[in-house]
Amino acid sequence: MALSTQPYKGARDFYPEDKRLQKYMFKMWRTVVERYGYEEYDAPIIEPFELYLSKTSEEVVNEQTYSFEDRGGRKVTLRPEMTPTVSRMVAAKRQELAYPLRWYSLPNLWRYERPQRGRLREHWQLNVDIFGISGPEADHEIIQVADAIMQAFKAKREMYEIKVNSRKLVNAFLQDTLGVDATQSQSLVRLIDRMHKIDHAEFVAQADAIFSPTQRDEGKSDQLFTFLKSDSLDSLPDNLQNHESINELKKLMDMLSGSRISNARFDPTLMRGFDYYSDIVFEVFDTDAENNRSMFGGGRYDGLVGLFGVEPVPTVGFGMGDVTLQNFLETHKLVPELRPETDAYLILVGHVYAAAQKTIADLREMGINMAVDMSGRKPDKQLKSAVKNGAHFAIFIGEKELADGQLVIKNLHTGKEERHGAERTVSILKDYRQK
Amino acid sequence: MALSTQPYKGARDFYPEDKRLQKYMFKMWRTVVERYGYEEYDAPIIEPFELYLSKTSEEVVNEQTYSFEDRGGRKVTLRPEMTPTVSRMVAAKRQELAYPLRWYSLPNLWRYERPQRGRLREHWQLNVDIFGISGPEADHEIIQVADAIMQAFKAKREMYEIKVNSRKLVNAFLQDTLGVDATQSQSLVRLIDRMHKIDHAEFVAQADAIFSPTQRDEGKSDQLFTFLKSDSLDSLPDNLQNHESINELKKLMDMLSGSRISNARFDPTLMRGFDYYSDIVFEVFDTDAENNRSMFGGGRYDGLVGLFGVEPVPTVGFGMGDVTLQNFLETHKLVPELRPETDAYLILVGHVYAAAQKTIADLREMGINMAVDMSGRKPDKQLKSAVKNGAHFAIFIGEKELADGQLVIKNLHTGKEERHGAERTVSILKDYRQK
Repeated sequence: MALSTQPYKGARDFYPEDKRLQKYMFKMWRTVVERYGYEEYDAPIIEPFELYLSKTSEEVVNEQTYSFEDRGGRKVTLRPEMTPTVSRMVAAKRQELAYPLRWYSLPNLWRYERPQRGRLREHWQLNVDIFGISGPEADHEIIQVADAIMQAFKAKREMYEIKVNSRKLVNAFLQDTLGVDATQSQSLVRLIDRMHKIDHAEFVAQADAIFSPTQRDEGKSDQLFTFLKSDSLDSLPDNLQNHESINELKKLMDMLSGSRISNARFDPTLMRGFDYYSDIVFEVFDTDAENNRSMFGGGRYDGLVGLFGVEPVPTVGFGMGDVTLQNFLETHKLVPELRPETDAYLILVGHVYAAAQKTIADLREMGINMAVDMSGRKPDKQLKSAVKNGAHFAIFIGEKELADGQLVIKNLHTGKEERHGAERTVSILKDYRQK
Repeated sequence: MALSTQPYKGARDFYPEDKRLQKYMFKMWRTVVERYGYEEYDAPIIEPFELYLSKTSEEVVNEQTYSFEDRGGRKVTLRPEMTPTVSRMVAAKRQELAYPLRWYSLPNLWRYERPQRGRLREHWQLNVDIFGISGPEADHEIIQVADAIMQAFKAKREMYEIKVNSRKLVNAFLQDTLGVDATQSQSLVRLIDRMHKIDHAEFVAQADAIFSPTQRDEGKSDQLFTFLKSDSLDSLPDNLQNHESINELKKLMDMLSGSRISNARFDPTLMRGFDYYSDIVFEVFDTDAENNRSMFGGGRYDGLVGLFGVEPVPTVGFGMGDVTLQNFLETHKLVPELRPETDAYLILVGHVYAAAQKTIADLREMGINMAVDMSGRKPDKQLKSAVKNGAHFAIFIGEKELADGQLVIKNLHTGKEERHGAERTVSILKDYRQK
């Protein structure tokens, strides 16, 4: 029986035209984050299973990740996210590293789930983290980097929105203003995290189920709902106005508008799923009606490095996936024309493969990327392959061209054919490449 | 209990300085193969287990790879090599693709084995393949690309050797000259493949065990040994001189020397492990006494695409691993000085983070990569971090600099300090980057 030609379910084959789009995204990511002084790191895709247990149960890790036992009896996991890995690496050299430490990576990640739009089993994710800064300047820079990436992809301000919140503020509201205990607080955070997926009545019913009868009678649900509807920091309850989290949020929002990031706004309903976030969180939303969804986000997680038995390091970071970015670029028609890396296809007229080697080597030496058709087929067949391969230029070399050094260069889009020496031929190709 | 900070056994963490070396190798690989018209593709690291069964047994795949069952009951494998994957992808679009088709990829691969020098459980491997050419011109180009990569890494001809053989020729010798049957032939190929790991007496004993008593009496072992010692095509037995495989090998060796690849030589003992090779094979050897080993190789495998139920496609390719390449570069002192991506560290004097934002944005706008220290520490502490981070330049900005627009730029290697406007500062940084 013949083998299947399909890629594994929920994962993608990247044919050269798909890979070109991914390379474009990777290149832009690298260019922007390196502009801010971030340096690239990487790590194995296999990590110990225990690494993912700190924030959830064994059952959930088993269910949502690719985990298995290696033949040495170790339980291992294909990383579903990069944050535990980067925390591990920083912890391993806690004392040797210089802070502020700025790192980024472009790992592929695996999660076990039903594939759907924007969610695949394998995706790539830009991870950007700054270690060693406890003040809101780090949050400011991280959001600035996220925004600079959107700008680099030519997104307009009205195409996306940056929602900002503070976990610390939410906790202060829940515990100091509402007066709930730590367990109730955690349940409420999880409820708020999914409030946009349920209707108002359902939300109130679930909140009431978390509150005690007395708290219900005191109208805590209404208070909570009023808080969650606040669209500015000034409209928050008086007793919170002097809380340090508000001062930090205000400072952050001021710095963001000072950096002309006019599409950032406070949103008290923003939680982000992960338990490890300890303070400021943010999320970038697509504002398009057809793709209105959270694209990516991040926040501060000061506690993670410390789980490895070293002194904790304040950390802010975010992750941005290739699948959601690609959806955004396509929705907003921001994918540029992406050309093949090959500048020209060389068509050999007659049996001149060996005789043409010197000319071929000279052309490449001058810096052009050239594919040679050595199939021995007739020139028109070779030309068809060149066109099918997406070539913009074909160069013809036969005995005549080898004798007089004048090559035939044909623009396959305009059909224009010219004869030039090697140097002029190369400069035509380079001119086109830079257009 | 604290979590371990170690990476998974046999795999590597890449801290930025390690990653820089890998990025240098990747960039060089891409530059050279794109010069020859190859285009990048990629595929998921998870493949169906069956994909690796065609050339070996279930037991061997289980033993030598990372294989497990996903929760849908599918047996899957982390790819140990890229060849089956690329064959699958070509087969899936057999009719739509244009030939000659030139593809490359840079996948990470996993194999289950005891980690040792040059062999790790996870490594990256450049894969280069040309599809659709049955003549030796394709073998010539593939070896030319392999050689061009070595040259791009500044390897001298005496540092490495390219051994070339033909599986077809070996089969002709075994079956036509020696007169062994197909089963004996396969056993002998496997014996020859490991002959450099055993001594002569052991080799003869094992060969004799494969021959029948009559064949032994006829001195087949001696004949075999004479064949394997041949160092030129002309010294091979007369009855082989007109075999097509010799003509192809001769044509190939002529083309290689025409391309000034003077360190290629015929070696009838070269087998390459994989069963799928059907004709020409080659291997690149490090000639250094301390690292005298096969670094990488490849060959022709015309039968693989056809396993997916489509018409076969003639294919030649090779794979080159990052671990062996790195060993080679280190052994021969060919690793160049690799600089961090960051051009300068910005040291803030006093509380000017918000006030300096415009200057910072301007500097980045002009194209320099700059990390900002917003820790609020004293300048000398910040300077220490900059030095520890490997910075070449520090820029100092305080209230005075913001007022008069003259920044302080300090060369951390020479200690020289100057005051310049933003544009001159940027041009100093760019000049150094291009050095």
